[in-house]
Formats: sequence, C-alpha cells, structure tokens
Amino acid sequence: MMQAKSDDSADTIGERASNLAYILRQRRQRLAGLINFPVILWSGRSTPRNYPGNLFPFRASSHFLYFAGWGVENAAIRLDSGKLELFMDDAHPSSALWHGEMPKREEIAQMMGADAAFPMAELGSRAASAATIAVQDATTYLQQCQILNRLVLPANTPQGIDLKLTGAIASVRLKHDFGALAQLRQAAACTVQAHKAGMAATASAKVEAEVRAAMEAVITAHDMTCAYPSIVTVHGEVLHNEQHHHPLQPGDLLLADVGAETAMGWASDVTRTWPVSGNFSSSQRDIYDVVLAAHDACIEKIRPDVEYRQIHLIAARVIAEGLVDLGILQGNAEYLVETDAHALFFPHGVGHLLGLDVHDMEDFGDLAGYEQRRARSQRFGLCYLRLNRPLQAGMVVTIEPGFYQVPAILNDSNLRSKYQDVVNWERLAQFGDVRGIRIEDDVLVTEAGSEVLTAALPTDAGAIEQLVKGS
Amino acid sequence: MMQAKSDDSADTIGERASNLAYILRQRRQRLAGLINFPVILWSGRSTPRNYPGNLFPFRASSHFLYFAGWGVENAAIRLDSGKLELFMDDAHPSSALWHGEMPKREEIAQMMGADAAFPMAELGSRAASAATIAVQDATTYLQQCQILNRLVLPANTPQGIDLKLTGAIASVRLKHDFGALAQLRQAAACTVQAHKAGMAATASAKVEAEVRAAMEAVITAHDMTCAYPSIVTVHGEVLHNEQHHHPLQPGDLLLADVGAETAMGWASDVTRTWPVSGNFSSSQRDIYDVVLAAHDACIEKIRPDVEYRQIHLIAARVIAEGLVDLGILQGNAEYLVETDAHALFFPHGVGHLLGLDVHDMEDFGDLAGYEQRRARSQRFGLCYLRLNRPLQAGMVVTIEPGFYQVPAILNDSNLRSKYQDVVNWERLAQFGDVRGIRIEDDVLVTEAGSEVLTAALPTDAGAIEQLVKGS
Repeated sequence: MMQAKSDDSADTIGERASNLAYILRQRRQRLAGLINFPVILWSGRSTPRNYPGNLFPFRASSHFLYFAGWGVENAAIRLDSGKLELFMDDAHPSSALWHGEMPKREEIAQMMGADAAFPMAELGSRAASAATIAVQDATTYLQQCQILNRLVLPANTPQGIDLKLTGAIASVRLKHDFGALAQLRQAAACTVQAHKAGMAATASAKVEAEVRAAMEAVITAHDMTCAYPSIVTVHGEVLHNEQHHHPLQPGDLLLADVGAETAMGWASDVTRTWPVSGNFSSSQRDIYDVVLAAHDACIEKIRPDVEYRQIHLIAARVIAEGLVDLGILQGNAEYLVETDAHALFFPHGVGHLLGLDVHDMEDFGDLAGYEQRRARSQRFGLCYLRLNRPLQAGMVVTIEPGFYQVPAILNDSNLRSKYQDVVNWERLAQFGDVRGIRIEDDVLVTEAGSEVLTAALPTDAGAIEQLVKGS
Repeated sequence: MMQAKSDDSADTIGERASNLAYILRQRRQRLAGLINFPVILWSGRSTPRNYPGNLFPFRASSHFLYFAGWGVENAAIRLDSGKLELFMDDAHPSSALWHGEMPKREEIAQMMGADAAFPMAELGSRAASAATIAVQDATTYLQQCQILNRLVLPANTPQGIDLKLTGAIASVRLKHDFGALAQLRQAAACTVQAHKAGMAATASAKVEAEVRAAMEAVITAHDMTCAYPSIVTVHGEVLHNEQHHHPLQPGDLLLADVGAETAMGWASDVTRTWPVSGNFSSSQRDIYDVVLAAHDACIEKIRPDVEYRQIHLIAARVIAEGLVDLGILQGNAEYLVETDAHALFFPHGVGHLLGLDVHDMEDFGDLAGYEQRRARSQRFGLCYLRLNRPLQAGMVVTIEPGFYQVPAILNDSNLRSKYQDVVNWERLAQFGDVRGIRIEDDVLVTEAGSEVLTAALPTDAGAIEQLVKGS
C-alpha cells in the first residue's frame, strides 16, 4: 500500500490523488470502527444569490468533504464498514458549452478511492437504516428527509443513530491527520501573507475597505477563498464587524480578522491589530502588551490533557492582572476572574476548534466543542466559551484573547453598578484610543506541547510597527 | 417636494436619504398605477456557508431592493396604492456585542419613506389577498407560503395576481430612473477601474487567479461586491469558466468578465480580452477586430423601438462577414446567419438586460426579457437569446459579441457534417491561438440613441495592448 506523503513531496498529480485516496480510506476506517450502521452524507448544492443562474460559490458540507475529499455538488456518499459508494449524476452534455468538460462520475470515484459509483437515482434503494447529518441548504435538507423517508433533525439536535453518528464524526474529526495538517498549513501560510499585505497597504489606504482588499487579494491570488467574512475595522469593539467603510485616522488601531480556506475546504483564522500610523500610542501599546501576554501564556500552557477551559481562564487572569497593573481594574486578579470582571473587557471565549470549518463542527452546536455531559456556563465570563474539552494531540485550536471597550457592556447600568468598585472609570478614560485589540493564532496540539501554525506572522508590537511602516 | 438630485451632488447623508426616499416613492407610485391589489415583498435572509454562524453575505431580493432601497435582512414590505408598510423586528439587544448598534425599525422606515412600520408578527394579519414574488432562499420561501396561506409558485411560473404583479414589476423595472442610473454609473466606473487593474497586473502574474485578485481588489476597495462570479481565464471558450488555476503563457489571450455591484445592489457587467504578452498575434488581432466590429455595429444601431433581436442578428451578420473575409467561413453572410453557421463560433445571445440583477429580472424566467406572446426560438443561433423586446429609452442592456472555439461544438459530428461545406477547417486551424474572445459593454438606451456607460474602458486593440504593457 502506498505510503502517505505530504502534498509537497508528491511528484505527480496521479501520485497526489492516490495519496489522498489513501488518507480518505483511513478516515473511513476510523469512522467504521466507531459505528455499526450505514451512513449517507450529502454534499449539498449552491444557493442562488439573486436568481437561479447567479449562485454563491459552491461550498460542500464539511462532513462530506472530510470523508470524500472532493467538493462535488449535488452528490452523496454511502459509507458502510469503511467502504464508500458515490452517488452523483454526470453533467448533461449540453453543459460543456457553459462549464467545459467536467470530470465524470467514474473519474471522481477513483479520486475518492470509492468502492462503487451509481447515479443519484439509485440512492433511494440503498438508503435503508442509514444515519445522516442534516446539511445547511434547505433544498438538499428536504431531499435528505425524502430519501431517508423520515424527519432528519437539525445537525445540532440529532437523535437516535444520527446522534451516534454525530458523536463518532466529532471524535474522528477532532484530531487532524497528516492530510488535514498539510492543508491547514497551506491555509495558515497564505493567511500570514495576507496579513503582511494588509499591514503594508495601510499607509496608503484611506478606508478600511482598501486594507481588506489588499488582504483578500492575496487569498484570491492563491486560488483560495475566505474561510469567513473578513473583519477589517477601526471599530474592533464590534466583535463581528462586517462594515468596511470607515475612514482610517492616524490615531486608530485597525483590527483585521481574516483567514484563508484551501480549495479542499481547510481553514485558517488569524487576527492582528495594528496602528494605522505605524506607531502604537503609549496607551495602545500598554493594552496591546497585556493582550499579547495573555496570548503567549495560553500557548505556553497548551499540551495534551490540559482542559481548554483552563486555557481560557489563564487568558482571563493575565488580562485581569494586566488591567490591575494599569490601574483600570482594582483588586485581586483571581477574585476578578471569579466574579467575571475581566469579561467587561474580554467578553468572548479564548478560541475554538479549527479544521474544515473555521469554528470546526459548529453545525453540531456544542456536541463537538463540549465534552459529553458538559453544558455552557451561564456565567458572563464563560458563556461564550465554544470549546470545553481536554486537549488532545492533533487538535488545532485558535488562541485569541482580546480587549474591547464595548458600549453595550460598559454603558449597561446593571453591569456598571455590579462592578462599580472594581473599575477605575477615570483611569479607563485615559485609554480612549483603544476600542478593540485581538491577537489570534492557530495552534496545533502536539505530543510535546504545541506548534503555532501561524508563527511566521509576528505578534510583537515592535515587529508589527515595522511591518506597517514597511521598514 | 424635494427635487431629486444625483448622489454626487447631495450635500449630506440626510439630504441623500430624503432624495432616495423620494425616488422610492415614485417607484411605488408607478407600480400602483398598474395594479389594484396589495403586494408583499420579502427581502430574504442569509444562507449558511458551512454552519449557521458562517453565512454568505446577505443579498436582499432585487424586487424588495427596488421598492425599499435598503437591503434589510428578514424584512417585508407591503405596498398598497403607493403606500409602504415595513415589517421587521429590531435586533435583540444582546446582538450589539457582536454586530454593534443596528438601525432601528423606525429609522429604516424613515430612510425608505415608509408610511408605517410594524413588527414582523403583524404581517400575517395584513396579508389577505396580497400578491407576491417567490424569493430564492428556501427558508423565506416557506414563510411566504405560510403567511399568505397558499402555495406561492416559483418566480418564473407565477399565476393569478402573482403573474399580474410580475408583469407590472417587469414593466416598471425595465426602464431605469434617475436613482438607478446614478447607481449603474457608479458600478460601471468601478468596473472600468477593475479591468484596467487586471490588464496592468497581467505582466507580473503567473496564473489566472493573480489577475482575478487584482481586479476584485479594486471592487472590494470601493466597498462594492462582485455582481457575479468572475470569469478570468485563458480558456475563454468555456463560457462560464470559474476556474482560475491555469498558468498564463505568453501566447495566450486572457478573457476577463468581471463586474461590480454597488452597496445598494446595482450591477455592472464588462468583458475584455487581452494578450498576456501585451501583443496580439496577427491571428488573434484578426479575430479580435471582427468581434469589435460586431460590438460597434450593435451599439451604433441601438435606439428606442429597435428590436433587440435585430441587434443580435447584426452581431451575427458582422461576425459571419468577418469570418468569410478571413476565409474561415465560406458563402454569403446573410445565408450563413439564416442557417445559424455563425453560431458555431458565436453560440450565445448578444446580451441581456442589466439592472439590480446582472441578468436583470432573470428570476422571472423570460417574463421580463421576452415581450408577451414571444417564446425562445429553437434555432441553434437564437436559442440563447435572453432579451427579445423592442428597446425603450431608459433600458440598460449589455452588448457582448464573441468568438469561441468550443470543442463541444466544433467536435460535434452532427454539426460538423451539417456545416461541412461552409467551414474551411484548414484555414480555421491557423487560428488555433484564439480560444475565446468577448468584448462586452453596458449600454443605456437614450431618446437620441445610446450611451455606453463603460466607455471609459478602451475596446481598440492597440489601446488594450498599451494598457497591458503599462505604457
């Protein structure tokens, strides 16, 4: 049997495809070891943007991609005891005028290492007793219910064999194999370049959109896509800000959360925050260094068997300590974290799983991110934690602490009265030019500890300034 | 009442908004003059890319946008006798953390010039006897059927009052008003810049994706979006080629069909074809000039009351004549067009309507593009014609003749035998370096004739060469 090799060392497309087929077969075998029923996974179909001929780019279901490797539209795979049957229809011959010659079912089946391939019409007769995962597009979802002849519940509330399948897929996809890591490294490398391009473009940019354009151009030029809607904003205090029209002022910080996704669907997720002028003000630098200390402390602690919740609490404690040192918070850091005071400025979780989805397997709700029998905390400082499991070698997680002055939090009268004694509001006012800072990297858990996949992008404030100034 | 002004001359955001509300009210009045029943139009909602939190960018239904102006997600408008009622729910206060403070229903209602505004839950009680247009996203479509308490047929096969509404909207949207033209001019100006950037980027690009990146970066930097999936390819013979991985070779022609869409949803659609090396070969130049002659002849003939089908046939005839002159086709040009021989090399229609959709109102099927009681021809040379109406002042159409060597056509044994006497295959072989050429502009029909909205982008072969060479 052919030895798995990295994409880079594969000499020919043929060898690379065999290599991939080998990796895919191993994934199917791992799943087969966990369940004793057949599985059908649908790839989904494109959704119209404004009329049926003008579509959003097709993005196959991640579960299909994981086991089938190729994002074939309107296809299904049936997995049974490690075997794969592919179901799809060849394109109508007339489509060659518009779309060129497309690979035929048999060719795609070979690339996937399939054991058999059939027209879509055969799927119904092979669907008995199969488990599935509900896809996101409503049209394919209705087809799932029809072919399986039962109600399929949404992916975050599965029941019966679908729930068992969810657990099995989560356990397989949590730890990345060689093929996945090769893809994640490619996405990370492209993303690092995109951020450097964004920093370099800032000096001549007048609005956020121009920096975003420079960053996404790197991703497009690599024939990759954005793994999620880019955040490139001087209003970093809006956590998922997708507006890009604000002008850049010399005193602003620009927060850029932009990540590439490879053609095979694997994501990167990186944030940097830099000064528009190329120089952090002293207040900006002070807070930046607090966030960076939290980032570094978290990564330092990552190793197998450590609880990710502990990593989150380390970020919270380092931020609380830093804000006490700066005179913004008052009191004992541990007590501040226990009472969620840090969450006034760091109101989200320290990160999440990363893989085929930028929040990997988030279609499962918390069934992948949370260990069995754990549920979301109601606490202000923990309720947005997306991952609550012991780390394992092979997981990739993001580490993304931040500091934000969110008006909806800081102007909330309940929160203000609850925390009136621990916040020095006058001192805080001296940090008015820090609306939002986040530093985010993609980190592989290794047997020895961790490896930062995005380490080629500096985090040090001085190095960031140099990149913005182009020197 | 405030006089409508162009966006450029509006002095303040407030004035611009009042200006827009005036334009929107006029649109509603025009519709009210054509129908005597209430109408409910839904904006639709975002569709997930791979899990519910990772969404494709929201694009509101074009019919909603046309009458409401603002692409508010998960909203509906009820139009009755020129009055507008807005139905939407304010964002939950907790969303401010993630998305910032969003405009409230009352503010949006004011921007739209609405006569009243209600929570979404009120829509059911105001839905009796209302006509609608089916939206594209399946989730909202189900909501339409539920709230109207009837089956809503797809937008290309409406019945009853929905069919009447379709005809009325088509007639209103066919001719663009002042506000629409201001938007279409903005989209055109940005698109011209994108194409110039693509030409300038070609010399240093190694693959198609790098040129695509340079073009889309201009669109992104203007805070606009791509109106449709960009085609940037050395394989122009694949009409809707969305692959961008091919290397650029010095002898290649690069075909780029890329258009911007403004934030308010108005599209541009432009194609240029240029030599990677900066110099057309003589065979490429010969064919380019044939396609350009067709392009120019079509635009020359555009004026009110001319049948668009005639414009298409002019393109066919000029191409046939040009190919006869080059010795590729043999015989009388008129006869060649009557027998569809031109379609061996120009197998698509010469253009389409342009507006909020890049193929404007194509969700209506041919109900907008085709005059009542006209149907698609079965002829090889006419079956892909998307517009078959007399032109009217205020329409914007594309003019996009082309020449392609499509293997699926030229290797088709039936077509080869049918046209064996009119094609000089040996002579054709001398044009092997011309896989696909298209030249496309956006043209406004005026009382006096026409105005090319994208005229700032040269079409002349020599000028194109200069732009590619950067001199």
